[in-house]
Formats: sequence, C-alpha cells, structure tokens
Amino acid sequence: MPPDSPDLSGAAEHFRALGITVKDGDVSAYGRDETMDLFAPPGLVVQPRSTPEVQEVLRLAAAESIPVTPRGGGTGKAGGCIPVAGGIVLSLERMDRIKDIDRVNRYAVVEPGVVLWTLHEECEKHGLLFPIDMSSGGSCLIGGNIACDAGGERAVKYGTTRAQVTGLEAVLIDGSVIRTGGKLAKNTAGYALHYLLVGSEGTLAVITEATLKLVPRPPHRATLLAAFASIERAALAALEVERSGAQPSAVEIIERAAAALAEEMLGNRLPHANAAALLLIEVEGFAEAATQEAAERVGELLLDAGADEVDLAPREKVWGVRHAVAEAIKRLPGYSAVDAVVPRSRTPDLIRKAHTIARRNGVEVVCFGHAGDGNIHVDFLRRDADDPHWNDAVKKAVREVLEATVALAGSITAEHGVGLLRKDDMPLQFDEPTLDAMRALKRAWDPQGLLNPGKWL
Amino acid sequence: MPPDSPDLSGAAEHFRALGITVKDGDVSAYGRDETMDLFAPPGLVVQPRSTPEVQEVLRLAAAESIPVTPRGGGTGKAGGCIPVAGGIVLSLERMDRIKDIDRVNRYAVVEPGVVLWTLHEECEKHGLLFPIDMSSGGSCLIGGNIACDAGGERAVKYGTTRAQVTGLEAVLIDGSVIRTGGKLAKNTAGYALHYLLVGSEGTLAVITEATLKLVPRPPHRATLLAAFASIERAALAALEVERSGAQPSAVEIIERAAAALAEEMLGNRLPHANAAALLLIEVEGFAEAATQEAAERVGELLLDAGADEVDLAPREKVWGVRHAVAEAIKRLPGYSAVDAVVPRSRTPDLIRKAHTIARRNGVEVVCFGHAGDGNIHVDFLRRDADDPHWNDAVKKAVREVLEATVALAGSITAEHGVGLLRKDDMPLQFDEPTLDAMRALKRAWDPQGLLNPGKWL
Repeated sequence: MPPDSPDLSGAAEHFRALGITVKDGDVSAYGRDETMDLFAPPGLVVQPRSTPEVQEVLRLAAAESIPVTPRGGGTGKAGGCIPVAGGIVLSLERMDRIKDIDRVNRYAVVEPGVVLWTLHEECEKHGLLFPIDMSSGGSCLIGGNIACDAGGERAVKYGTTRAQVTGLEAVLIDGSVIRTGGKLAKNTAGYALHYLLVGSEGTLAVITEATLKLVPRPPHRATLLAAFASIERAALAALEVERSGAQPSAVEIIERAAAALAEEMLGNRLPHANAAALLLIEVEGFAEAATQEAAERVGELLLDAGADEVDLAPREKVWGVRHAVAEAIKRLPGYSAVDAVVPRSRTPDLIRKAHTIARRNGVEVVCFGHAGDGNIHVDFLRRDADDPHWNDAVKKAVREVLEATVALAGSITAEHGVGLLRKDDMPLQFDEPTLDAMRALKRAWDPQGLLNPGKWL
Repeated sequence: MPPDSPDLSGAAEHFRALGITVKDGDVSAYGRDETMDLFAPPGLVVQPRSTPEVQEVLRLAAAESIPVTPRGGGTGKAGGCIPVAGGIVLSLERMDRIKDIDRVNRYAVVEPGVVLWTLHEECEKHGLLFPIDMSSGGSCLIGGNIACDAGGERAVKYGTTRAQVTGLEAVLIDGSVIRTGGKLAKNTAGYALHYLLVGSEGTLAVITEATLKLVPRPPHRATLLAAFASIERAALAALEVERSGAQPSAVEIIERAAAALAEEMLGNRLPHANAAALLLIEVEGFAEAATQEAAERVGELLLDAGADEVDLAPREKVWGVRHAVAEAIKRLPGYSAVDAVVPRSRTPDLIRKAHTIARRNGVEVVCFGHAGDGNIHVDFLRRDADDPHWNDAVKKAVREVLEATVALAGSITAEHGVGLLRKDDMPLQFDEPTLDAMRALKRAWDPQGLLNPGKWL
C-alpha cells in the first residue's frame, strides 16, 4: 500500500485539463458506505462521464502508482468502496445512461451509474423486468450491484445479478478496454471475463458498460404473509415452499423483533403481533386466476408446514416493513451484520446456532432475509450505546456465526461482498491454494495492486 | 510448444509406480473427437481415479514441462481435446462417481467422468432433473460439458451448463487443488473461480468435482411440431414463442433437408414432408391440464405467427429425428459446422445470410438448432467426396458465416467451444486488449502453457 496522503494536486490538474470532473469541496461522503464505523478519507474524487475518461484516470493512476477505489452508490454493507489506501475515488455516478432497452431480445445496455430503481422504471415502460431488487434500490447503482453480485429478494426465482449479466465492457488498470459477451443466450468463445468480474468488488477492473438480461414482467402478483410460533419452523416452511416447484418470486423470513423495529420506525403494524416469525411469500404470473390459484396452493402448503395463520397481504405494506428492517437496525446505537448463506436445508440450523451464540455471548440477535436462498442476515443489535461489554462480545459472536456458517457448508457472504468487513474471515472459507489462485488472477491484471487496494486480497 | 514425441516412458513408469492407470495398446482413439478430419497422436494416456492421482499427473507434467490435454467423452465438435502438442492425454473417464444427490437442497456432486445421461437417470429416481441435455448425452461426460459450457436444447428455459454449476474442485498445473462454491443459491465471497473455469476448455485447470444445481422434474410434457413454408418464417415464429412468456423447455428449428437426412438414416419419417422448415417446441409442467393448455396456447401462437400446420407430436419420434441430425450429417462424405449464436431477433437474418453465402460459394447448407436461444448450427454438407471444389469453397463460406455472425453482434461459438476449429477466428470477435487480458489469466495459472496447449490462446 502506498504511503498516506501523497500529493494528488498534479493528478487533479491533469484530469481537469482533460475535462474530467474532479469533485470540489467536502468529499468525506466518498470515504464511507453503509457499513457502521468505517471511514477513510479519499485523496481525490473523480466523476468520469465516459469510458475514455475512465481510461485516462486509470492510465495516470498506473503511471504514478496511485491507488484507485471504484465507487457506485455507496450503499455497500461491507466497506468494499472505502478508500483505505487513500488515492483516487473513481465514482461512476455520472455514467448514468441507459443506452438501450432492447424490447425484442429483452436486454438492457447500461452504464454503471444507473440507479437500480431507475432501470426498473424504464423496463416497466416496456413490459419488462430487471429481476434484481433490494431495499437499497433507490440509491444503489447497477455497477455496484454487479461488482458485488447483489442478490436481494427475487434471486430465489431469477438468480443473483450474475445470472443477469451477459456482457461487460471494463477498463483494466493499464487503461485498456476489454469487452466480452453481448445480447446472447449462449456464448462459449474465450474466457467468460464478465463472469469473473461479477463479484470481484472493483479489484480487477472498472466496469463501464453492462448488458443485462431482462424478463417479461408478470403483471399479476399475490403476496402472502404467514405467522409462525418459531423462526426455525418458519425456515422449515420456507424450504417446503421452495421444494414445491411453485417458483415463488420471494421467500422472505423476518424474526418478530426485526419486524417490530421496522414497524416502530414506520408507524405501520403488520398483523400477527404475537408470532415469533413471519414469512413473506410472493408469487407472480401472467394470468390472474392462475396466480391466485398458485398463491392458494402455497398458502395451504404453509399451513401444512406449521404456519399458525396465512393471509393474502397488502403488498406495499408488508414490503414496506420488510424493506425498512435494515434501515431501522441502522438507527440503533449499534449493530453488526453477518450476511450468511447456507444450503437451504441448513437455514433452521443456522438460525438456531445464531441464537445460541448470541445468548452465550450476552448480545441480542435478530435473523431475517432470504430464506428461500438460505441467505440469512444475522444482525446483532446494540440497544444501549453505553454498554461497555458490547464491542468485544459482538466481535466474538460474529466470528462464531461465521464459523458456524462455514461448518454448515455455507459462505461468509451471500450478497454483501467481502470488502473490509470480512477480509480477515476469508481463510475460514478458503484454503491457501484457493486464495493464492485468486491472488494470481489479481496480479495478472493489476500487478501493482492499485485497484481497490487494502481489501481481502 | 514442446518438440514432437518426447520420450514419455519415464513418466509412464512413474505413474504406474504410483498406481495410476496408464492405457496400454492402441491409444489413437484418444487423438480425436467428433470434429471431422482432426487427429493428433497422444504420447501417453492416463486415466486417474481420484483428485490426488490428477495432482500427481500434473505435478510431474509441470516438473518435466510435458503438455497435458484433459479429455472428457471425446464428443467435442471443435477439436478441443485433440492433443496437438503430444504429451499426456489426461482422460477423466474413470472418475465417474456420482458422489451425492441432495434431494432436499437439489444439488448433485459429481466427478467429471459421469456420463450425462447416467446423471439424468440418477436424478430421475429422485424426481429431479439436471436440465442440460443434448444429442451426445449417452457418451459425453459432465466434465466436458462444464469445460465447454455445453448448452443443448433445454438451455432456452434453464440456461447453459454455466447456470447449473455452483461449485467446483479443480487441480492447477502445479498440482494445487482449488475449491470454490458449493450448494449455495448465493455466494459472493472471493472471485468466482468456478465461473471462470466453466467454458475454459481445459486450458486453466483440470476439473475434478462439480456441484450442480438440479430442478424439480416437471412430470408433464407436451411436444409440438409446426410446419413452415420458409425457415425464416419458422425462426420468426420461434421468436414469438420465446417472447410470449410461455417458457417452453425447447424451441428447436430444423430445416427440411436436415430432417430428411436424419429420417433417411433412421427410416422414420416426420409429417409435413413438404414443409421448408419445422419447429419442435416442448412445454412442461407440474399439472397435466395446465401443461396441455400451455401447449394449446403455444400452438395458437404458432399459427398466428405463420405456421402452416401445428400438431401435438409423439415425443420420442420427433426427438429421435432431431437428435439424429448431427449423426446423419457426420455420415456424409464431408461437412463443416458453424455453431453460431446471435441475439434472438437476428436468427432470421443469420439463416438468410447463411443461405446467400452458401449459394454464392456453390456449397450446400442446412440450418438447424436452438432457435429459442439464437443458436443456429450452420452445417455445410459435402455430398460428393470427389468434388474438388468443396474444400476451398467451404472454407470461404465458413469464414463468411462467422463474419456475418459477428456483424450481427453474435458469437462464433455458442456451445461447441473454440478448440482448434475456431482458433484462428477469435480475432473476428475479440480485439487484442481483450485477448491479451485472457492470455494474462492463462499465464497466471499456467505460466509454462502446458494445459491443453496449441489451442486458441
């Protein structure tokens, strides 16, 4: 890592002379994301508007060995865009054009700075759906979604961001532009560089354009809310739904205490205040009657699987609460989040273990997330800012949950990424030869280690 | 590339001493695949039975700079497993265990030497489906399917092999074993090495275990056969079906002359002998009535889109003909196949251009394949072995079809791979910076260039 705070005024001047926007004034917002307590000051924030401008930024960075941290919407939850080595923050926010919505072939071609829900709106106009969705959709950028392989609530039916990316343009640290894939359903020419870049968290290249698969937008939806006496039972019921072949477009689990936080924040209460856990299940379809029937079948299945009650629920209200959970937790005096994923059948085990670990370490925990994928957000809550015990206890608890996740054949991050937060936990999941093989790829493209330095590599 | 025919008797002795099977006798079958006219003699054929045995083979190869060509079922159509540099052919055929069919989570864990249809049978016993299928399913090996990102007829609904691979174990040329992924629906920890390995055609590592996603097996199917007066019209109708949201599990197109070859070989005639082209469409479902209804809707759609006739067809018979097309073509005095893929809406253009090019060059062409994916096999046929004109003409025609494919924003190979056959055509599709970026990855893991040498890299 280069020395602290090198003088970047020459670089700034160089960029300005080329017409590249260098952000003036207070840039401290570019030193954080949505991860608690992480901050590092950027040396310089640039906001290129085109691929050639990104090339210029990277060329100078390579020539002068300046670290570059690519940045999307700054909504990450693992510190992946924190410029820990200083240097240049390369913000993609101004590369925000939707270049093409190809209605016939059902693809979008976008720049990385498009806000996720802006893309949704544009697709909707054409009767199409970009199936990635999540709570931060109003501010996260599609480039960041790709860099982190964002998952969210619809991945249970459509797969994660990776499954939607069929082509990328990206700039390597030496300024060269690579292009692979396209609007193609099959394609096995050469290495699938775009699949390598998805989830690489800005450490290999800067994504400047993406070709994304779209699907026909099912016009009908039915949302079910099911109440359970225990969260393990809810997790088992989720498994049954997932196995039924019903192909729900969302299978979300929310522990009561997590829902309560969101309800309080919103002043909006869901039914089943006494249930230990809720399942929120959505089915969608192209015919109204068939969608209703599918919802009824899922409802019966949930009752058979141990739900105390199942209702057709008002969509906006229940998703409002679900989407507010993370924000409500963020408003507490403190929290620490594990983005665990296990083989679906192990979700009840994971949840049980999370609670045992929390109890043993004297901290509060809530579980919620994407039960249909085995992706459970295990969030430790700090209610009392003055609790001297919390920091040490939660550190231990988080590590134990990660160990339990790996012991259940899971992964330490499902959709948030490794970033800074899970950097030291990578050897839990990967042995040295595998980590070495990853590092070899990094060195091949970025021998000076300038792209998003200081992260897990 | 190392010099011809080095003495490998020392290597053979070393392997035998370690208990690794070295094939005796005539090994010339290991010097070819299903690509016409390609052959190179293997120096030594080894058939390891375990990951440690693969490690031993690669360690010695690295130490003594011996080329290693990994080999699956030898059913490739691009010469990807031809040992052009001699050395060791590493056949995975004896690593043929299905280690686990996880019924609850719906994953299979397999060794690379499992025959595709053997995996199908095993999955069927559990009410599950491994959705990759193709004409060579009775002899191709799953390791080869992964190495080439095999597509086949069901990719239109389920995606290619890539979409099914959630974890891999593989051995690098230095003998180290890497492991990524698992039975996970989401997973963004570290680089997705398994996605890089899918489609890498044995040039980066030897795959020794794969975790594969399975889906619930829809018990009901309906197969439609539609007749069209022109192949372009059939291709347009395929597009309409694909856009309808009906999610057919196959949308195959067969030009009459291609079907005729298969019919003659089988002595089994499909109806509509006067049609210029046929569409074979399959829908599947979990309820019989709904499946029939879906088939009827698709049937109406096909008639609206210009089909002259549409029938519910006997499944075995029509698939029998479809699957026999490639074999029937192979029995001709000669052929040359282009595995083109374009954005779906460009399939009619591609087919039209293929015919124009064939006419202009005085060769016969038939088009068939996976219309729902935009993946058209453009096969040039040699009826007369003594035609002196054929070789030069077909070479020119093939190149022109590849150029047309790229001009239509397509890819020079959809599912067959680059291998030897498309080696010289790669610059049509990729610029130098992109090819260089691919080569840098190759060098990072295989600095001596020993794994499957002499191919497109």
